[in-house]
Amino acid sequence: MSIKFTYSSLYTFIQQVFLKIGCSEKDAKTAADTLISADMRGVDSHGVARLSGYVRLWEANRVKANPVIKIVHETSSTAVVDGDSGLGLVVAHFAMNVAIEKAKNCGTGWVSVKNSNHFGIAGTHAMMALSHDMIGMAMTNGSAIVAPTFSVEKLLGTNPIAVAVPSGKEQPFVADFATTTASNGKLEILQRKNNEAPGGWLQTKNGEPTTDAHALKDGGALLPLGGDKEHGSHKGYALGSIVDIFSAVLSGANYGPWVPPFPAYIPMPENGPGEGIGHFFGAMRIDAFRPADEFKKNMDQWIHRFKNAKAVEGQERVYIPGEPEIEMEKDRAENGIPLLEVVIEDLKKIGEKFEIAFPEKLS
Amino acid sequence: MSIKFTYSSLYTFIQQVFLKIGCSEKDAKTAADTLISADMRGVDSHGVARLSGYVRLWEANRVKANPVIKIVHETSSTAVVDGDSGLGLVVAHFAMNVAIEKAKNCGTGWVSVKNSNHFGIAGTHAMMALSHDMIGMAMTNGSAIVAPTFSVEKLLGTNPIAVAVPSGKEQPFVADFATTTASNGKLEILQRKNNEAPGGWLQTKNGEPTTDAHALKDGGALLPLGGDKEHGSHKGYALGSIVDIFSAVLSGANYGPWVPPFPAYIPMPENGPGEGIGHFFGAMRIDAFRPADEFKKNMDQWIHRFKNAKAVEGQERVYIPGEPEIEMEKDRAENGIPLLEVVIEDLKKIGEKFEIAFPEKLS
Repeated sequence: MSIKFTYSSLYTFIQQVFLKIGCSEKDAKTAADTLISADMRGVDSHGVARLSGYVRLWEANRVKANPVIKIVHETSSTAVVDGDSGLGLVVAHFAMNVAIEKAKNCGTGWVSVKNSNHFGIAGTHAMMALSHDMIGMAMTNGSAIVAPTFSVEKLLGTNPIAVAVPSGKEQPFVADFATTTASNGKLEILQRKNNEAPGGWLQTKNGEPTTDAHALKDGGALLPLGGDKEHGSHKGYALGSIVDIFSAVLSGANYGPWVPPFPAYIPMPENGPGEGIGHFFGAMRIDAFRPADEFKKNMDQWIHRFKNAKAVEGQERVYIPGEPEIEMEKDRAENGIPLLEVVIEDLKKIGEKFEIAFPEKLS
Repeated sequence: MSIKFTYSSLYTFIQQVFLKIGCSEKDAKTAADTLISADMRGVDSHGVARLSGYVRLWEANRVKANPVIKIVHETSSTAVVDGDSGLGLVVAHFAMNVAIEKAKNCGTGWVSVKNSNHFGIAGTHAMMALSHDMIGMAMTNGSAIVAPTFSVEKLLGTNPIAVAVPSGKEQPFVADFATTTASNGKLEILQRKNNEAPGGWLQTKNGEPTTDAHALKDGGALLPLGGDKEHGSHKGYALGSIVDIFSAVLSGANYGPWVPPFPAYIPMPENGPGEGIGHFFGAMRIDAFRPADEFKKNMDQWIHRFKNAKAVEGQERVYIPGEPEIEMEKDRAENGIPLLEVVIEDLKKIGEKFEIAFPEKLS
C-alpha cells in the first residue's frame, strides 16, 4: 500500500516545487525542511502529503510565494508578525526566530502572528529553540472542525500545542499534540481502513456521540481532548480556546469559526474579524532562570526516572513525549519515508504540472 | 449535610488563624483572600477545607509563617523566586506580582518558584493580571498521585494550569483545570457518596483501569486527561509534565515523584533533587501585542459567539471557561458559603486550639 523514498530525493522534489511557484531559494529550503520534518517524525498528515494543498492555495491566490513578512508591533520581549499571506511554513520560521532573538536579549520572546496560513508541524518550530539552550513553544489555530463542550456547532480547530525542552545526555523532551481527543490525521487513517472510531473522538451533526469515523464529513465534529464533560472535555475545550486566543485575538488574525480553511475548494468564511490564520511562538532562555548545565542535569534525571518507571502489563515501557518521533526519525533516515499510493499519484501530478521529475522509489 | 456561612465571618476566622500561627497582618490577609476565593468560586477542595492542613504543615515545621521570600535570579522578563518554605498562598502572590511588574517594563514577565508549598487555587493567582490589562498564567506541581501513560508508578501531581484573559463588556475568560481527567476534589465527592467513578479517571495499584473511587487510597493512581492512550492520555501526561518542568526543573524545586506531599502525616520523599514544591507564573501585557481596546473588542466577540453556539439536546447552552465559577461567586456572595459538617468540626477544633470563636452559621 506504500512505497519508500529517500529523504534527499523527496527533499529535492519539494524544494523544486516551492521554487517553481516563485519562492526564493531561502524560503523554498525553509518550507521543504519543515514539510519533510513531519514525514521524518511520523506525522504523515502534515508532511509531503500536504504539498499539493499548499500549491492549490497558491493557485487560488490565498498564499503569496513572495510575501513581505514583517514585525508590525513590538516590545523588548514581544512582537506581532504580519505574515503577508505567506506560506505558514515560512512565516512560522521567521516568527520563531524573532522569539529566539528577543529571548537572547531579555530572557524570553513571545510572538503572535496574523495573516498566515497552515504552518505544518508545530513541533519542528518549537524545536528551533533547542540549539540555543532555550525552551521553545509553538501553537496555531486552524479552521473550525471541533465542537466545544455542549456545542453542536464547530467553533475551534484542532489547535495544536508544541513545547520543546533541552536536556543534557538524554534526548530532548518534545510534546506536540492536537488539543482534541484525536488529531484529524489519526481519524483519516481509520477512514481509509473503514474502521470505527473509539468513543470520545467524534459527534454527529446533531451533537450525539458516535463511533462513525466518517461523521466529520457528514457535518459532525471532532471533540476536545477528554471527549465529554464527564471525562474532562471542558479542559480540552479550554486548551483549544487558549491556543485560539494567543494565536489570533492577540495578533489580529481570524479566530473561532472565521479561520480560513486549508483546502482551497472550501469557500472562505464570511465577515472574518481578522487577517488570515494565527500562530503563537515562545522562547525562554534556560539561563534566564538558572545555569543551563544545572537545568540539563535535572532534566536528564527527570527523563531517566520517567523512562524507567514500571510499565503496566502488556506495555514494554513508559515513553517521554517526543521519544516515539525520534525513533521514527532514525528509522526513516535509514529505511526511507513510506508514501501511500494516493499521495504518490498526487505528487506525480504536481511533478507533471511543473515539469519536475518525480523521484525513483527507494531500492 | 452542609451549613452556610457568610463570606465575612469565614474570612475573619481564617485571617485570625493565620495571624495566630505568626503570619504578618499583610500575609494573613493575602492567605485568607486566596483560600476563601476558592470557596467563593466553588472549588471547595482548595478552600477553607484545607485550612487545618496548612496549620498541620506549620506544626510539622514544613511551613514557615514568616518566610523571607526573595528573587534569587532574574533578567528583564524572568525571575526565579525562593519561597523560603512560606505558605504557597503567600509565595504565589509575591511571585505573580513579580511577573506583573516585569510585564509592565518589558511586555511579559515569567517567574519560576522553588521552595514553596501548596498555593491554593491556581485561577485566583492568574486573575491578578486582569486589572492590569494583562493575560495571567499560573501553574504548580504537586505530590505524585498521577500515573503517566503506560506507567504503574505515580510520577506526577494533578498539576493544574490556569489562564486568565481580559475582556471588555463580557466577563473575563478564566480557564483553571487539573491536567488529569478529573481533579482529586471531584474524586473526593464520589468517595463521600460511595459512588463509582467513570472510566478513565483511575487505575488500580497494578495499573488496570477501574471505576472504584477508592482506588487511589488503595495504591492506585489518577489518570492524565484523556484516560488512556486511545483517548489521548499521552497529551494529558505531556501537559502535566510541562507544568512539572516549568514549575520545578526551571526553578530548582522538587519534581516528579520527589514533590513533598500536602498532608503533614505523609513522610517527605527521600533524596529530593530540589527545594520544596515549584510553581510557574506568567503575565503578558495586552498592549505589548496590540491596543488593549481592540483586543477586548475581539475578545468580547469571541466570548459572545461561543456563548451563543447552538447547544446539544439536553444542555441549556455552551459555557465560557470561568463562567460557572462567576455564577457560583454571585450565588455564594448572596446566599453564603456551604460547608460540610466534617469541615466545620475540623475548623472548630482549630478555633479551640487558637482560642478563636468559630462563626455562627448564616441565618
